[in-house]
Amino acid sequence: MKNKILIINGVNLNLQGKREQHIYGNCSFDDYLSQLKSAYEQQADIDFFQSNSEQEIIDKIQQSESYNAVIINAGAFTHTSLAIADAIRSVNNIFIEVHISNIFARENYRQHSYLSSCVKGCIAGLGLDVYRLAIEHILSIPRQRV
Amino acid sequence: MKNKILIINGVNLNLQGKREQHIYGNCSFDDYLSQLKSAYEQQADIDFFQSNSEQEIIDKIQQSESYNAVIINAGAFTHTSLAIADAIRSVNNIFIEVHISNIFARENYRQHSYLSSCVKGCIAGLGLDVYRLAIEHILSIPRQRV
Amino acid sequence: MKNKILIINGVNLNLQGKREQHIYGNCSFDDYLSQLKSAYEQQADIDFFQSNSEQEIIDKIQQSESYNAVIINAGAFTHTSLAIADAIRSVNNIFIEVHISNIFARENYRQHSYLSSCVKGCIAGLGLDVYRLAIEHILSIPRQRV
Amino acid sequence: MKNKILIINGVNLNLQGKREQHIYGNCSFDDYLSQLKSAYEQQADIDFFQSNSEQEIIDKIQQSESYNAVIINAGAFTHTSLAIADAIRSVNNIFIEVHISNIFARENYRQHSYLSSCVKGCIAGLGLDVYRLAIEHILSIPRQRV
Amino acid sequence: MKNKILIINGVNLNLQGKREQHIYGNCSFDDYLSQLKSAYEQQADIDFFQSNSEQEIIDKIQQSESYNAVIINAGAFTHTSLAIADAIRSVNNIFIEVHISNIFARENYRQHSYLSSCVKGCIAGLGLDVYRLAIEHILSIPRQRV
Amino acid sequence: MKNKILIINGVNLNLQGKREQHIYGNCSFDDYLSQLKSAYEQQADIDFFQSNSEQEIIDKIQQSESYNAVIINAGAFTHTSLAIADAIRSVNNIFIEVHISNIFARENYRQHSYLSSCVKGCIAGLGLDVYRLAIEHILSIPRQRV
Amino acid sequence: MKNKILIINGVNLNLQGKREQHIYGNCSFDDYLSQLKSAYEQQADIDFFQSNSEQEIIDKIQQSESYNAVIINAGAFTHTSLAIADAIRSVNNIFIEVHISNIFARENYRQHSYLSSCVKGCIAGLGLDVYRLAIEHILSIPRQRV
Amino acid sequence: MKNKILIINGVNLNLQGKREQHIYGNCSFDDYLSQLKSAYEQQADIDFFQSNSEQEIIDKIQQSESYNAVIINAGAFTHTSLAIADAIRSVNNIFIEVHISNIFARENYRQHSYLSSCVKGCIAGLGLDVYRLAIEHILSIPRQRV
Amino acid sequence: MKNKILIINGVNLNLQGKREQHIYGNCSFDDYLSQLKSAYEQQADIDFFQSNSEQEIIDKIQQSESYNAVIINAGAFTHTSLAIADAIRSVNNIFIEVHISNIFARENYRQHSYLSSCVKGCIAGLGLDVYRLAIEHILSIPRQRV
Amino acid sequence: MKNKILIINGVNLNLQGKREQHIYGNCSFDDYLSQLKSAYEQQADIDFFQSNSEQEIIDKIQQSESYNAVIINAGAFTHTSLAIADAIRSVNNIFIEVHISNIFARENYRQHSYLSSCVKGCIAGLGLDVYRLAIEHILSIPRQRV
Amino acid sequence: MKNKILIINGVNLNLQGKREQHIYGNCSFDDYLSQLKSAYEQQADIDFFQSNSEQEIIDKIQQSESYNAVIINAGAFTHTSLAIADAIRSVNNIFIEVHISNIFARENYRQHSYLSSCVKGCIAGLGLDVYRLAIEHILSIPRQRV
Amino acid sequence: MKNKILIINGVNLNLQGKREQHIYGNCSFDDYLSQLKSAYEQQADIDFFQSNSEQEIIDKIQQSESYNAVIINAGAFTHTSLAIADAIRSVNNIFIEVHISNIFARENYRQHSYLSSCVKGCIAGLGLDVYRLAIEHILSIPRQRV
Repeated sequence: MKNKILIINGVNLNLQGKREQHIYGNCSFDDYLSQLKSAYEQQADIDFFQSNSEQEIIDKIQQSESYNAVIINAGAFTHTSLAIADAIRSVNNIFIEVHISNIFARENYRQHSYLSSCVKGCIAGLGLDVYRLAIEHILSIPRQRV
Repeated sequence: MKNKILIINGVNLNLQGKREQHIYGNCSFDDYLSQLKSAYEQQADIDFFQSNSEQEIIDKIQQSESYNAVIINAGAFTHTSLAIADAIRSVNNIFIEVHISNIFARENYRQHSYLSSCVKGCIAGLGLDVYRLAIEHILSIPRQRV
Repeated sequence: MKNKILIINGVNLNLQGKREQHIYGNCSFDDYLSQLKSAYEQQADIDFFQSNSEQEIIDKIQQSESYNAVIINAGAFTHTSLAIADAIRSVNNIFIEVHISNIFARENYRQHSYLSSCVKGCIAGLGLDVYRLAIEHILSIPRQRV
Repeated sequence: MKNKILIINGVNLNLQGKREQHIYGNCSFDDYLSQLKSAYEQQADIDFFQSNSEQEIIDKIQQSESYNAVIINAGAFTHTSLAIADAIRSVNNIFIEVHISNIFARENYRQHSYLSSCVKGCIAGLGLDVYRLAIEHILSIPRQRV
Repeated sequence: MKNKILIINGVNLNLQGKREQHIYGNCSFDDYLSQLKSAYEQQADIDFFQSNSEQEIIDKIQQSESYNAVIINAGAFTHTSLAIADAIRSVNNIFIEVHISNIFARENYRQHSYLSSCVKGCIAGLGLDVYRLAIEHILSIPRQRV
Repeated sequence: MKNKILIINGVNLNLQGKREQHIYGNCSFDDYLSQLKSAYEQQADIDFFQSNSEQEIIDKIQQSESYNAVIINAGAFTHTSLAIADAIRSVNNIFIEVHISNIFARENYRQHSYLSSCVKGCIAGLGLDVYRLAIEHILSIPRQRV
Repeated sequence: MKNKILIINGVNLNLQGKREQHIYGNCSFDDYLSQLKSAYEQQADIDFFQSNSEQEIIDKIQQSESYNAVIINAGAFTHTSLAIADAIRSVNNIFIEVHISNIFARENYRQHSYLSSCVKGCIAGLGLDVYRLAIEHILSIPRQRV
Repeated sequence: MKNKILIINGVNLNLQGKREQHIYGNCSFDDYLSQLKSAYEQQADIDFFQSNSEQEIIDKIQQSESYNAVIINAGAFTHTSLAIADAIRSVNNIFIEVHISNIFARENYRQHSYLSSCVKGCIAGLGLDVYRLAIEHILSIPRQRV
Repeated sequence: MKNKILIINGVNLNLQGKREQHIYGNCSFDDYLSQLKSAYEQQADIDFFQSNSEQEIIDKIQQSESYNAVIINAGAFTHTSLAIADAIRSVNNIFIEVHISNIFARENYRQHSYLSSCVKGCIAGLGLDVYRLAIEHILSIPRQRV
Repeated sequence: MKNKILIINGVNLNLQGKREQHIYGNCSFDDYLSQLKSAYEQQADIDFFQSNSEQEIIDKIQQSESYNAVIINAGAFTHTSLAIADAIRSVNNIFIEVHISNIFARENYRQHSYLSSCVKGCIAGLGLDVYRLAIEHILSIPRQRV
Repeated sequence: MKNKILIINGVNLNLQGKREQHIYGNCSFDDYLSQLKSAYEQQADIDFFQSNSEQEIIDKIQQSESYNAVIINAGAFTHTSLAIADAIRSVNNIFIEVHISNIFARENYRQHSYLSSCVKGCIAGLGLDVYRLAIEHILSIPRQRV
Repeated sequence: MKNKILIINGVNLNLQGKREQHIYGNCSFDDYLSQLKSAYEQQADIDFFQSNSEQEIIDKIQQSESYNAVIINAGAFTHTSLAIADAIRSVNNIFIEVHISNIFARENYRQHSYLSSCVKGCIAGLGLDVYRLAIEHILSIPRQRV
């Protein structure tokens, strides 16, 4: 049976490929997602959700229990939203935090994440490939756990 | 050709003229805006947007490229929203931050602004006149730049 | 004449009774609210509002002047939302802050509240009973004040 | 069977009603206590102890196991006495911390409490009514627990 | 009757137009001042004072009561001179703080101003135009106030 | 009519003249007090109270309203007792804080005083003479105030 | 000639063996002391003093010069009482600080000791055996020093 | 042509599979490495180096230019060794930092990494799978870059 | 032989009696000084020096060795001038620091003094009387010392 | 059966008896060790290891399971080596931390120990006797535990 | 052609040789300067400027472009004057910071220098010889650069 | 008789001339050293030691008493190794700390040096010339001292 995986992209990530290309690259997320879905279509159904609204992200997280795992890139909310972290805590599921850029080599206020302490793990700085690696890891987890 | 200018007012600014009048004065923003539009109608088209929603403000900023410049008073979001700051960074435009009250003479947590480091400049403490001064400055910028 | 009381529950509190039961207990808020309304139906009309949206909570607070008093449990927004605190400041009413868990015995970042300095008082750590105690206190206030 | 409840008032609270009335009100604690005892005489025996001595408060706490619960307002010791906190930890009983004024809206050094992390909960800022609310809560606890 | 306005420029501002042009631009203050005086000659007499001496700036501030308002750019003294702030406090007049560069996007130690809490407002980051905007604001203040 | 002045010496000051003589000198307080009383016997009745007990000092302060003024050297309690500071706040009287040694040139934890913000003034570092200067000041205050 | 050794136990240590046994063990201090006295009766006279009163501990320290050395476990006063530290400083004697539990592996506020910098040395975390080790060390000091 | 990849394991990682198994799991690194090599033998030559010596790790890093990329888990050196970070900076190569446990959910002093700001990216908290994911990423990088 | 005493008043103190009278009182320093000189004319020659210039104050301090003692109120320089502190250190004389207002009950940045650790003692908060008390103390010092 | 005890001395302790004798005394560790071994030869085999290498100390700790207990004085590594602390955590054994000097009365950076939170206890400030006391304690532990 | 070198000595350095000789030595700067000039008269013209005025030092720096390089010892201004640092930044020249004493081994507030980040390098702690070494370095710089 | 001078280079300095040339320049240390030795061969025997091992550096320092002075550039160990600082303290010799780059204008964590407070002085930021200047200074010290 195929895995069901949810990718949640947070605030300003709808601009991926357009904004600050020296940091985030110039590939749009839609293009990347298509490739990702094709590459893994035998193994996983990948759903995608993006919002600039903290509330909508929280609602999505609360309804994510039908998925085997959630990959979350909360954008700037990573560093300011205790509410999203609490939503993750309230759901019994596997969350993996990803960041396209190496947040540890940027401004001070991007080096602390409210999410890190309530996810399983974190992948950062490897460009869009961080999403694929998260999927790779989810597929490697024995199913009963997922 | 006339300038197109967008004014964005953030959270709780819909109460301008009613709330805490010893701090913010008793003139409603609607009344003030009408005067402003008349005074500058030869030189500028002024659009106005207010919201108590962080998301709606971010969306508006992302769609602001058709304007020559944006004047933003984010209210309390000034001090907590890294996401609005990131939205400003993601748009190639001129932003001017304004504050009706002198935030530097108030509580400690109002003295740091996430926005200040990604706008062109900041005008604070001169009452509603801060909006007019921002327009004055925008009009003084040679057009090719704007 | 009966008191009109508004209870505002913030982010993730729609999961009360389901999430992290070792911290918040397993009683749903709906069940609790029914009991509360019956118990006080002679003395008070109790309205209830929950939202995961910071904006909706701010709007509700701005429109709360028809109530005699407001009981607010802002959830994680307690610790990050200066905007909700400003909304409380902008309204001329009595607010009582409540927390189901003892926030003072939890993580550091849950020990500071933006709301505490602009409410009348705070009740924390006594489970769902904190709502009843807040009502008890409101009823004890001489009406002209309320 | 009636509950046995102990109220402990700490340092300078013998001056309640006299000192800094704009903060603490002008009702003496003796008058308030009489009313409280009458109001709850069917449900609870209420004992009262006040001292300006840290030692006497510690001794009282160590000997409080015959009570169903203890309500404690340690006054300024709240913020400086780790020894009282340790005494609470050493006794197997229910403690509820109360404060007449809203300590969270006062000086910085009144915003940390050594007691908070070792009591069941905290009620602050609602005037003398905080004592009554604490009793209300104690009476609501199923007896076997108490 | 014309307004009398004093502009005070502090330490190192005699080098405006020469030093660190990528930050401060290459227009000398003398040239800029001439234009400013012509532009407003109907409405205001503008006096100018520059000094690298903290003492001389303090003396000038103490003697500024004959002016309707004072525009002050204290340069690096902004961040280190409590004495200039005290001088401003000691004079019953309107002060507007200006900065050519956006001090909030620079080194940490340039982000705190001793002056901000004792002036009416602050304009920063808009180049030399900050002086003109300050004058615009002063002219907008009803005379009896000025 | 003679002034009534109370001197309160706090913890470990019973050892004055014996302990750490390189810091506190070798004159016992009893000897010094006798001289002080003689010198001022025309102008003032000087009472003296020493205790190593925080409680006894608080009780004494609470009962000090019959005195025109109180001179207090709380010893180490200066730096740790918020309760003594609160006692001073609760009494409507003049308090002058004194220290034999220059506490500002000693360990960090001796440079903060809980008392300083609730006394009229502070005299430190001038040896036992600080008591005499405090009396000198009290005598200089016009009687209706005292 | 036998050594004279004084053991001072501070606040809440009268509950040793009863309180928080997972931290402090379940042996009462009385039982332990009897064994200790027997074991060393040839070499030392061991006196014991316990109090929950900071004042009484200070008085005891001031009067301890007839002993060869003092072993002190001040309990929670360790972390808050500068007055006890000053008392130790005022007496010309050998003090050894002991702690039953490993205070360095506990809460932050238990990791600083006011006493440590004015005692000869410190023994912590080895259960009740810390008292015996302190005695062992005292007996090893050449007498003229003691 | 096959990729040449070097894995560097730092201090105490020779105990992987034995020490603190609730944190690090019970699989030895040797066993894991064998599987990894087999799985990727078509695509990569994987060399492995472990040392408890900061110096040997630095020497290895300095000599790593013959590899296409380096995967480094420096263990506790992550948090204390600026020298290893400088060694990484001095070599023109791709480094990926990995951690078996989620360091962000552990002690404070494990949440800062000297390495993070000088590597390409970081993978943490996903157990031994972090090594495989790093290899996956390296293989995805176009060769001319590698 | 008469004592020679120098009083140094620092920045903005030339406005004493005019500025912020609720803090500093309304008596000019000139008037106060006349009285002081008369009162002590048998015992002391009192010289007075005021400057808003840090340099002139430093020069005066360097030349103050002909005086028996110096009374210094550096105004805002107290809190920012390490150079004045160094000048005091470089002169072999007695300095007494005075403050008219109780600096310990004012803004945070007025609670640290660079001077305190290099003067003999400090008198604060007792209004203009602080100058007289300083003189009183100087006169009490045995002459050979002075 | 005799106990097997390992003493590990860290960096610069090979100079014991020679370096900074006012702090560490002038007895060489070799001489002291001989006496110690003789004194306890009936009860314990004492092995000794000293190194200035962090790596060698870590290796020794990892191999220490054949000993009943380890006494460790890591010297300056105490304050900087998280790796040694992790090595201690990885071994299932009893560790006792010792320091010859009273580190709590020295520089700030010597008052924090990475080791303290992962050893059983700590003995400091009693000169070389700290080693003997650690042995005394180990011998007192019931063997099955050791 | 000879180098032209300017030495600037800041506040209190006119007392060199007289003040605090245990720190700064007893050689006057005039004597030292004569020797220096003679020793290097073939290679360099050395000008010297000392002032206790921050303003005069800033003015001198602004006029220093005719020199090949500037050696600056700003005394206490090193630690408080952002204005001098800005003056250095505004001039296109080589500055070398020197300190007679080892400022890193003194009080905390002497360990940060505003100047360090805008000079070429820093020489400290080697007595008056720091001036000679700075000259040595300047002479070693290839002329076109200077 | 010639001076004997030891130069110790720490971690990663074996890459001098190769790594990060925009910071450290492109001259290898070997080439530089040859020139240095020739230039001073009449006056000094210069030995050189480089290691990436903290231990080897400590051992070398402990054995350095046969030299007249030691020049040390500890590289990144400067900022993390208390052990090297203690080794310096334990040896009775002259140490001069040098840094090729201006560490004060770099990252925060490079601005504190453990070594600074236990060496005679420090020379930083003047490129490889810092070694020559250190030698110049050593040669200037009267021999009996060296």
